[in-house]
Amino acid sequence: MAGDGGEVTLLGHWGSPFVTRVRLVLRLKGVSYSYVEEDLRSKSDLLLRCNPVHRSVPVLIHDGRPVCESRVILQYVDEAFGSPGDTLLPADPHERAVARFWAAYFDEEMGAPWDRALRAGSEEERAAWMQKVVEAADGLERGLSECTGGGRKGCFFGGERVGYVDVVVGGVVSYVHATARVSGERVFQDEARTPLLAAWLRRFGELGVARELLQDVDRVVDYVRFIHAKNAGKAPPAN
Amino acid sequence: MAGDGGEVTLLGHWGSPFVTRVRLVLRLKGVSYSYVEEDLRSKSDLLLRCNPVHRSVPVLIHDGRPVCESRVILQYVDEAFGSPGDTLLPADPHERAVARFWAAYFDEEMGAPWDRALRAGSEEERAAWMQKVVEAADGLERGLSECTGGGRKGCFFGGERVGYVDVVVGGVVSYVHATARVSGERVFQDEARTPLLAAWLRRFGELGVARELLQDVDRVVDYVRFIHAKNAGKAPPAN
Repeated sequence: MAGDGGEVTLLGHWGSPFVTRVRLVLRLKGVSYSYVEEDLRSKSDLLLRCNPVHRSVPVLIHDGRPVCESRVILQYVDEAFGSPGDTLLPADPHERAVARFWAAYFDEEMGAPWDRALRAGSEEERAAWMQKVVEAADGLERGLSECTGGGRKGCFFGGERVGYVDVVVGGVVSYVHATARVSGERVFQDEARTPLLAAWLRRFGELGVARELLQDVDRVVDYVRFIHAKNAGKAPPAN
Repeated sequence: MAGDGGEVTLLGHWGSPFVTRVRLVLRLKGVSYSYVEEDLRSKSDLLLRCNPVHRSVPVLIHDGRPVCESRVILQYVDEAFGSPGDTLLPADPHERAVARFWAAYFDEEMGAPWDRALRAGSEEERAAWMQKVVEAADGLERGLSECTGGGRKGCFFGGERVGYVDVVVGGVVSYVHATARVSGERVFQDEARTPLLAAWLRRFGELGVARELLQDVDRVVDYVRFIHAKNAGKAPPAN
């Protein structure tokens, strides 16, 4: 399979949900790699050289060639490593399209406002952005129902097995738990409102890869409080 | 090839660059389809049923199954139709990753602020968003250089042939020309600042599919002026 073998390096940051999803896919696909923790206040020359456009983690470097942007990296790892019959994205083109749709939905409708909430300058602003995140979880619940036939085909977006969307969403699991502790929003945990997502959260957290790779929730709680404190009083960004 | 054959319908709107890119890919892949023009002020039940999440065009319906979101549709059409050796995305996983990176870059860094500029409530706001679009063209110029080896491998993102990124960017070509006429910004036309994009714009416009499918520039000019007038005086959105 093209790309198998060769040196793999991941430039990351422990707190990034986008890095976590790349770590998940590398482990699920059985790829050995070196991990380099970046100091985001003083980014390495390697990071800036490999990702001059966004200057952000994660960056995957395979045989000297960088790949940037987490969903692009996930698809790259899925295509370049492992056997063709053992991919995170389904083989059927329509099922692939459905998976890509929900992965993009998660990043645009949940991830983007969640990031704004994290960096909000006031409690009112934070709560307003988190309200968007919680509302978008209703859409994701419908997505999980679509991908699993209402739960009949398994509890993951990939059915019985973890798939592409599971990895995309899986990156935020520690933030889901930390958010409940820091500010009380139960993004996925409401059994009455989002029963499939609540079951997904439990089952995903029980996976070996999740126990091994998800961030420690206490540490994320401290990190979220640190970011809130740092941004308190700042005006919202212009866009 | 999976998906070949079967009835294909596209729900669209003539002015949408996202619909234009889907029309381009369908033609390039030789797919026969029915086209349904939507009235965006009174969307059809079919559209709302097929795309309940975003309620927007384009929607592709293949054998009764909808696919939404233009980049998802492009990849679906590329995978489901035509021969496996004749795809818009390159065969090499790293080249595929590079193409997906630049397609996402275009939508996020150029398409999103361009849309904000179009819907701006004042000339100052409009000009500020267009400034972001023009600046982002510098990044896209680097992307075109990366994809073509500085122009040595051809003038398209796909090299000698039109590829995935060309179709993504190709959707806005009539808007590039209309913008120059309405407000003077030369997003791709500056030979000194973005010589590869300027050459791309000329060569893309000469293609048979472009002559056939790109919107009439006079009509886009009128449409852009209509949207500007409709939004004049409106406050900028909260996000």
